[in-house]
Amino acid sequence: MHITDIIIKKRDGGRLNKEELEYVTREYTAGNIPDYQVSALLMAICLKGMDENETEDLTFAIRDSGDIVDLSPIDGVKIDKHSTGGVGDKTTLIVAPLVASLGIKVAKMSGRGLGHTGGTVDKLESIKGFRTSLSKEEFFAAVNSAGLAVSGQSGNLAPADKKLYALRDVTGTVENHSLIVSSIMGKKLASGADGIVLDVKVGSGSFNKTPKAAKRLAEAMVNIGKSAGKKTAALLTDMDVPLGKAIGNALEVKEAIEVLHGGGDSALVTLCTELAAVMLYLGEKGSLEQCRTMAKDALTAGKAFDSFVAMVKAQGGDESCIYDTRLLPAASHIYPVKSTAEGYIVASNAKEYGKASLVLGAGRERKEDTVDHAAGIIIEKHRGDKVKVGDVIAYLHTNRKEAIAEAAELILSATEIGAEPPESKPVIQGLIL
Amino acid sequence: MHITDIIIKKRDGGRLNKEELEYVTREYTAGNIPDYQVSALLMAICLKGMDENETEDLTFAIRDSGDIVDLSPIDGVKIDKHSTGGVGDKTTLIVAPLVASLGIKVAKMSGRGLGHTGGTVDKLESIKGFRTSLSKEEFFAAVNSAGLAVSGQSGNLAPADKKLYALRDVTGTVENHSLIVSSIMGKKLASGADGIVLDVKVGSGSFNKTPKAAKRLAEAMVNIGKSAGKKTAALLTDMDVPLGKAIGNALEVKEAIEVLHGGGDSALVTLCTELAAVMLYLGEKGSLEQCRTMAKDALTAGKAFDSFVAMVKAQGGDESCIYDTRLLPAASHIYPVKSTAEGYIVASNAKEYGKASLVLGAGRERKEDTVDHAAGIIIEKHRGDKVKVGDVIAYLHTNRKEAIAEAAELILSATEIGAEPPESKPVIQGLIL
Repeated sequence: MHITDIIIKKRDGGRLNKEELEYVTREYTAGNIPDYQVSALLMAICLKGMDENETEDLTFAIRDSGDIVDLSPIDGVKIDKHSTGGVGDKTTLIVAPLVASLGIKVAKMSGRGLGHTGGTVDKLESIKGFRTSLSKEEFFAAVNSAGLAVSGQSGNLAPADKKLYALRDVTGTVENHSLIVSSIMGKKLASGADGIVLDVKVGSGSFNKTPKAAKRLAEAMVNIGKSAGKKTAALLTDMDVPLGKAIGNALEVKEAIEVLHGGGDSALVTLCTELAAVMLYLGEKGSLEQCRTMAKDALTAGKAFDSFVAMVKAQGGDESCIYDTRLLPAASHIYPVKSTAEGYIVASNAKEYGKASLVLGAGRERKEDTVDHAAGIIIEKHRGDKVKVGDVIAYLHTNRKEAIAEAAELILSATEIGAEPPESKPVIQGLIL
Repeated sequence: MHITDIIIKKRDGGRLNKEELEYVTREYTAGNIPDYQVSALLMAICLKGMDENETEDLTFAIRDSGDIVDLSPIDGVKIDKHSTGGVGDKTTLIVAPLVASLGIKVAKMSGRGLGHTGGTVDKLESIKGFRTSLSKEEFFAAVNSAGLAVSGQSGNLAPADKKLYALRDVTGTVENHSLIVSSIMGKKLASGADGIVLDVKVGSGSFNKTPKAAKRLAEAMVNIGKSAGKKTAALLTDMDVPLGKAIGNALEVKEAIEVLHGGGDSALVTLCTELAAVMLYLGEKGSLEQCRTMAKDALTAGKAFDSFVAMVKAQGGDESCIYDTRLLPAASHIYPVKSTAEGYIVASNAKEYGKASLVLGAGRERKEDTVDHAAGIIIEKHRGDKVKVGDVIAYLHTNRKEAIAEAAELILSATEIGAEPPESKPVIQGLIL
């Protein structure tokens, strides 16, 4: 088999077969095919596409490129959850303890990743002492005792995806349906859960700009998950505006705790309840309607919060800052961004809010960057809210005084104010079972 | 300027501007942009195309990536000739001395290149002592004294093309109109002649499979040449069948000498006369019709042969083997390939004949391979000829006894025999002035 023949086949619109996709994935991972040939193939895939079979074959090849985690040392049903990513997305912090409190085991492996705000691992690390680098044995023991654990991705999980993603990132080949599907599902299928719930975002702050693209992505991932023998479901959810009111690591932990106490932003609560319900449903805890009720009740009864505390303890975190969130890292500067116009907020561009939080120090541009756990944004006026001139739209939290002007500018230009209130947009836009 | 932005722009079907194409060419040549980003861009160009302006901008960027040869130390009008390559193409060996004998200076820089048979430099090196590695001063002196010289490409001529071509070769991005145009013309425009005649091949043995593609290529190259201030013309010529009767280095030198003595295969003579006529015309030696007559007369009068001898002498070659071609390298095995059918030869697939000559030792697959000057093929029955069972179609010349069976097989399967004679196909299919 020759890589140039495979490139030319795809360039000319041909279908790649299982053997060809396995060959490329295996030999690229092993370092036997150079980056420059794979990037040409990736571009050909972007422009000529791959059909369902090719996408599935590539997904399975990525899954099989490294170890497949064996979660059998963990008792009970293990359900995983994955979000395609967005701004202010702290759902894992809420949903994982919520379903754990109802008897579903969550053994979550989470990447640190790049982005405007940190990943789940970064968020949890804003809790003093919280350890995310667990050995396999520690990880399994934590899930068995607390019902859930979150660990930084370790071991040799889908190494092909790591290499491919790094290459796609610098060659303009990120935005392709099949490459996105195979990247997400290749990794998820290697992580060993019995079932997977996917939170597929749509809107300005996600890579799915249209509901149609998001639906296609979600359907493809659900089909591949099922084809691999996993219970799989997907929610389509709004990411036109940031999720909830907090953006930034410690700020999001604080907001998550509010929700775990039965309070919090209604869109965030709605989404977390539905995600948990679908996870419970895949775990065969009842009908979808029953699972929704169970999830709601567990939040109000504080059971979910207890599971969160158990996880923090099991992973070495200082539980005092969970009981008193004023003990979480706090920024030296808190700056109000005030409205310069009167009217209704018709759009709060999620991507731009994300950029602002990055400027304030909450995320990382390069792998080696350090995340400032205290930095971020608290949104005071969200889409649909009425504002007057001088009203505070958001508070910027930062330790970088010099970044405030730029971030404030970003927030103001990302916040569109109109004369009429916008049509309300539900956070949940679809469910694929 | 960011290379990923440029890749994404082209991926999404955008137009690259002059600054972007210059940036990529310059920084890639300097080693500041890695292969894997350029190969993604090349694939995007293959699949999204480039318009005339982009093609011209890229051509000029390639031309300007290294030194531009200054031919002013050579007196008179300098006209260059370029063939897009084919099997049995020994026209330079004939056309260069032919126009030199009529007062046009030919300072030909020729690559060694890869291919089924050697390049012009390899062919000339089958003449004992012939030196193709000339210093700039030697090269200019040879052209001034003999009227022509052929030198292996030296110096820093269009280094971007060398790097880009090597990358295209291994990433499935060779076959693109704009990339082909910019590669050929970028190099030609750097080589300093006052005018350029392009021999654009069409048919099985060339990369232009259709006359339409060849015409488009020729027109684009002529336009760019003119736009760069060079007199430029192109011939569209047949490469469905090998050109002439000889394939292989010494065998082609021998055939060229036959033509220089006023004999030889009629298609070959027709093409050489026309190429020379167009070169003379660009050199303002008369009307095109007058130039045709001059070229024909110079061949029959032996003037062109005298110029060939002058070149061989000036470049240190042993002129005795020009006067007595039996002194050229000869193969240890000469094997007749006999027809197994009766009828008319309707096709002699040039590409397959080329492969056979490669198998016999006449070409090189890798840069480091050595060419066997003696190896090759003499065609006895060409397209249109009548054959009986047992008639010799071709003689294989080789020093590799073990290669004979494979080469004979290739020749037989490449030679199509039909009941009716084929329509005759002129060697010259178009002229673009």
